[in-house]
Amino acid sequence: MYRAGIDLGGTNIKAGIVDEDQKILAEGSVPTMVKRPYQEIIKDMADLVKDLLGKIGAEERELSSVGVGSPGTVDAESGMVRYSNNFGWENIPLAEELGTYFTCPIHISNDANCAALGEVKAGAAKETKNAILLTLGTGVGGGVIIDGKVFEGAHAGGAELGHTSLIFGGEPCTCGRKGCVEAYVSATGLIRQARRAAEQKKDSLMNELCGGDLSAMNGKIPFDAAEQKDEAAMAVVDDYITYLGEAIANYVNIFRPDVVLLSGGVCNQKEKLTGPLTAYIKTVCFAGEKAFIPEVRCAILGNSAGIIGAANL
Amino acid sequence: MYRAGIDLGGTNIKAGIVDEDQKILAEGSVPTMVKRPYQEIIKDMADLVKDLLGKIGAEERELSSVGVGSPGTVDAESGMVRYSNNFGWENIPLAEELGTYFTCPIHISNDANCAALGEVKAGAAKETKNAILLTLGTGVGGGVIIDGKVFEGAHAGGAELGHTSLIFGGEPCTCGRKGCVEAYVSATGLIRQARRAAEQKKDSLMNELCGGDLSAMNGKIPFDAAEQKDEAAMAVVDDYITYLGEAIANYVNIFRPDVVLLSGGVCNQKEKLTGPLTAYIKTVCFAGEKAFIPEVRCAILGNSAGIIGAANL
Repeated sequence: MYRAGIDLGGTNIKAGIVDEDQKILAEGSVPTMVKRPYQEIIKDMADLVKDLLGKIGAEERELSSVGVGSPGTVDAESGMVRYSNNFGWENIPLAEELGTYFTCPIHISNDANCAALGEVKAGAAKETKNAILLTLGTGVGGGVIIDGKVFEGAHAGGAELGHTSLIFGGEPCTCGRKGCVEAYVSATGLIRQARRAAEQKKDSLMNELCGGDLSAMNGKIPFDAAEQKDEAAMAVVDDYITYLGEAIANYVNIFRPDVVLLSGGVCNQKEKLTGPLTAYIKTVCFAGEKAFIPEVRCAILGNSAGIIGAANL
Repeated sequence: MYRAGIDLGGTNIKAGIVDEDQKILAEGSVPTMVKRPYQEIIKDMADLVKDLLGKIGAEERELSSVGVGSPGTVDAESGMVRYSNNFGWENIPLAEELGTYFTCPIHISNDANCAALGEVKAGAAKETKNAILLTLGTGVGGGVIIDGKVFEGAHAGGAELGHTSLIFGGEPCTCGRKGCVEAYVSATGLIRQARRAAEQKKDSLMNELCGGDLSAMNGKIPFDAAEQKDEAAMAVVDDYITYLGEAIANYVNIFRPDVVLLSGGVCNQKEKLTGPLTAYIKTVCFAGEKAFIPEVRCAILGNSAGIIGAANL
């Protein structure tokens, strides 16, 4: 039997057919075009899955489930997307609508949850059953896997790890609150801090690496400049690791997972990021080394994590 | 059948025999005397339970389980207390040792987890299956109940809600970290903030209510003085509610429970505490009123919560 996994993104709908060994046998994508009526988007999701089934010569009755990772506040139990800011969605019956195209069960969850599940089933946390994933992109998504299953919280809107406060009264967050983890450890947050530092220190190498145009700042530049011992950049990187370390320590004190995973462009820094983070949380987690301290690792599946995770819902 | 619940405290061992309707049929306590060898403490726990069984005329074979709520970092799976600072315990085989006195299964968990479970089974969250409890005492304990069961985390040392950071780089916490929730919303934290405010504002009513001796400050005085419109006290109470509200919003964004419970002396303030808190979290929780926002309530079972919870492990 096969399972289909769909990763619903703001730009593209990606889908794959996954076998029992967690291998993606066929995958493809179509543009999301978020401004369309949701029914059209969901029809394209169904067509894409059927297309992929055709490509591997499988029939629909060989499909045991279809899973979808959706952005926003997802109610897994009722199959509804309660709210998605990017999509302009409110109370969209995603599972029900998609179910009109299939006879097998449909499962939905938040996209970060799916990525976390994918990494636990087939990726960087494959040997474990308990992991936390932080997706460090424009925002910060959180996925929590407990005993091999997605932890949803009792009501929709749980596991929003990026929307816990890090700095009381700090930077405004996209969620309306101040000082959330997302405002500091997202790529957006890192870039903002690097821009400010470069602006204050005109002789910082970061200015040169931007070609003198701070709007060209990205998350790689402060790490590159820090490597060259640029002081302003080293301070930005140090702060970033401290912020992320404090946030991870909070999640460890709550969930005590086997492993903490990170994904997003900043993971290109690999050991330069995960090494100091693993060391940092050892110094701040509750009960210190008297309790279990997980390793911090980078996710390895990239886009496939969401597809494999959705297929495993 | 009956179940025994034991609440192991720094001063007293409290125990009760609980029936299937969650009623305590007999209860009693003996001094803990924490400095003794752990074997003696555990023998007293067993003797107390057998004594209580005798009082209700029941026999040991009518006991289906014995549960213990212990302070510290508890490994429920192995039945070990990994670490308890107050007791000077490290890797104590509590369940195994207690098991030498009984033929029925022994279960152990952290004391705050037991209090949370007790309130869900028979107290302030009786109609729900998903609740968070914060015990606001000398420290801050956290208990998380999901689907009617204690959430332990994957390894011992999870659900330490009091040891998540609230103010980055803030007050030193007992755990060695800075700015933890515990350092601000424990009774100790509230008293520290009230003392500082009274010291700065010599004309604050709080000084008078202390009899001019700031070492006599307690958690009730700032609330009493705020009621009389004392400005310094009103600021202390406002800050306290904001700190607690921010912490609760973090837990809601992670767990989305049906209800959030508070216990400890500060709960004597009842609606003056829970009213503003429920209102505050509505303004800061992720997705605002588009997602479920739980009510903040005071726990109602007092000391019985730990006994009933332990009996339900």
